[in-house]
Amino acid sequence: MQSPSRDIRLRNCFSMLRHLLADHPSSRPDLAKKTGLSVATVSNLVTELIDLGVVVEAGLEDSGGGRPRMLLGPNTDGGVLIGVDVATTYVKFEAYDLALQVLFRIEEQVDLAEDTPEKLLDHIASGMAAVREVLADREILGLGVSLPGQVDVAGGISVSNPNWNWRDVAFKELLAERLGLDAPIYLDNSLKTVTAGELWFGDGLGVERLAVVVLGTGVGVGLAFDGKLYRGATNSAGEWGHTTIDPNGPVCRCGRRGCIEARIGAPGILRQWAAMGCDREWETQESAIEALAADWKTGEEPAVRTIEAVARDLALGVANFVNLVNPDLVVFTGWVSDALGEALLPELRRRLPDHVLESALGALRIKLDEQSRNMVILGAAALALEGHLNRIKSVGSRARL
Amino acid sequence: MQSPSRDIRLRNCFSMLRHLLADHPSSRPDLAKKTGLSVATVSNLVTELIDLGVVVEAGLEDSGGGRPRMLLGPNTDGGVLIGVDVATTYVKFEAYDLALQVLFRIEEQVDLAEDTPEKLLDHIASGMAAVREVLADREILGLGVSLPGQVDVAGGISVSNPNWNWRDVAFKELLAERLGLDAPIYLDNSLKTVTAGELWFGDGLGVERLAVVVLGTGVGVGLAFDGKLYRGATNSAGEWGHTTIDPNGPVCRCGRRGCIEARIGAPGILRQWAAMGCDREWETQESAIEALAADWKTGEEPAVRTIEAVARDLALGVANFVNLVNPDLVVFTGWVSDALGEALLPELRRRLPDHVLESALGALRIKLDEQSRNMVILGAAALALEGHLNRIKSVGSRARL
Repeated sequence: MQSPSRDIRLRNCFSMLRHLLADHPSSRPDLAKKTGLSVATVSNLVTELIDLGVVVEAGLEDSGGGRPRMLLGPNTDGGVLIGVDVATTYVKFEAYDLALQVLFRIEEQVDLAEDTPEKLLDHIASGMAAVREVLADREILGLGVSLPGQVDVAGGISVSNPNWNWRDVAFKELLAERLGLDAPIYLDNSLKTVTAGELWFGDGLGVERLAVVVLGTGVGVGLAFDGKLYRGATNSAGEWGHTTIDPNGPVCRCGRRGCIEARIGAPGILRQWAAMGCDREWETQESAIEALAADWKTGEEPAVRTIEAVARDLALGVANFVNLVNPDLVVFTGWVSDALGEALLPELRRRLPDHVLESALGALRIKLDEQSRNMVILGAAALALEGHLNRIKSVGSRARL
Repeated sequence: MQSPSRDIRLRNCFSMLRHLLADHPSSRPDLAKKTGLSVATVSNLVTELIDLGVVVEAGLEDSGGGRPRMLLGPNTDGGVLIGVDVATTYVKFEAYDLALQVLFRIEEQVDLAEDTPEKLLDHIASGMAAVREVLADREILGLGVSLPGQVDVAGGISVSNPNWNWRDVAFKELLAERLGLDAPIYLDNSLKTVTAGELWFGDGLGVERLAVVVLGTGVGVGLAFDGKLYRGATNSAGEWGHTTIDPNGPVCRCGRRGCIEARIGAPGILRQWAAMGCDREWETQESAIEALAADWKTGEEPAVRTIEAVARDLALGVANFVNLVNPDLVVFTGWVSDALGEALLPELRRRLPDHVLESALGALRIKLDEQSRNMVILGAAALALEGHLNRIKSVGSRARL
């Protein structure tokens, strides 16, 4: 496991970077003030961040009499980070500078039949070739890859996968061979990358007990405690979608009965809408969920009743993990949350007091992710940035995040 | 929040103490070998533990030519720790020496009508007077008190309580005034104290992700991550008893419907047994649960079917938190577990694969607590010992637990 001093370093680095990205150029005393770190700790970290090429000196500031203060900024001309989101029907790439601005973005369409590791490696190699052509003069500092399914992070193994019929594929090794890249590769599943994204670049920074609810085709809840992604014993933590809320509920795609995912994953929501009387058909579940959101807005009865039913199940499921984990903040994200969050959240807020213990409810904030960024990809890149920042040796005190 | 270096210190101290209690006298190099700490760290910690009166020098050992090695042992003649378990019908006291051996034990019976803080304070003061009389010549290092219900640890407040109709009572302050004790008082609820007991003196030491399932009148699951009790935002984590496994299930004493506690807390189990055809009556639910265990052993049909039904609900509930938290070890404790664990666990093991994801199941160990000790009280004393050990300044490397 990672050492506590490494955890503190990462928190301190991300805290400084966040403040520097939000407002730069900044001086060392400014950063100390904003992060709550000592000036000595900030100075040590800044020296190492400059050596690593993450931070650059960006002019001088009059200090009111004394020696002028050096100002600092993110090194936007330095190395780049690549985030990759591998899904069943696409592979998306984003390249970021160290201010986390997107330099280049590309997407490969994947056919559902392309279900072998080799076919996916073809798509990743093809996308990466385009990224490297566009950014030929930039050093790649790290590549973060989000895969669906179960991932063994230390071994770089794609253990299993709900969509493709493969097991225990040494994906990271295959990818490294295929790409011939000097930069390190970080593999994880999308629940973990999106949680890393929220933790470092979303609403999660400084939250001691964070829960990130991802609503999509599947559902899950990413956890981060004490400024650190909580993975569990086998990186399988957060499989909330396969917790039971009703032993007599519908059968889930995992084969079990009564999983919350069978009710509030996109297919489950659309089944409920059909049961409420909607008999239209759509090409994709994405367009169907958008249509449900539109119908709810105009007050169509089946849509309104569907949202009520989904919010009821969502409240049961959210209450179950809130009673267990007692988080400070629950953030809702994912494409279904983007489409239906506005409809679901007020109803969820109304229902939670029926299910959450008073002691946990008082401290609880819930909110929609309002970032316009793709948190799965940004989070994958954040894992690569974590790896890069782990080269820093300084420890120092602990940042107020 | 507690600093990470303090967390590491505590882990190191408890690791050393555990090894010292299991096998003493031991030399510093022995302890370094067993704990995985450097000899320098062990030496620094030992010096401070001797200053604190926790450890004593206990003779010399030939080191094969060089200077003889000093041997160390727990200071059984030093200060004492007191654990108190406050429940609806009793207050139990145990006084421990620093080898965690029970020096004195006493119990006060509490009438159900004695439901005011003042009446309880009377009982605690009465029990403590007896403890102090017997151990008049011993310094009390700390008093750990387990209360039912919701406890604000930092404020020492009994926030709310399922059994007594009180709210926001400054119990720690009242207790300190009443006892006039020099030693610090540590207040927490029984789920947290029992988890602290398992973490430091039970099966939990060295387990990175520990879950302690308490089965009694109520049920809960105490969590400890990374060698530290996980409390949640408001010390309300672990309220597993009030997670929903069936929205059409029976009404719980908390007023909600479908809580797992309503099915597998002692009253729920006895209701299920009655529904299976048992029409006997008992004076206490404890004797009823014992009778159920006896009937199950002799293969009585209603008892066997009740155990099956309870194991089915238990499997759903355990799977729900295992899928979410992905622990390394689940320990079952509490008086219902003591009586029925032997019946429930094989059935639970058989059913878990139907509900727990394969990735989490592979790493999971489940076991009954086989300690003969009262973990609620020992855990309360462990919180007092934590407080005492927190006076130590050394940090050093991290023990292999």
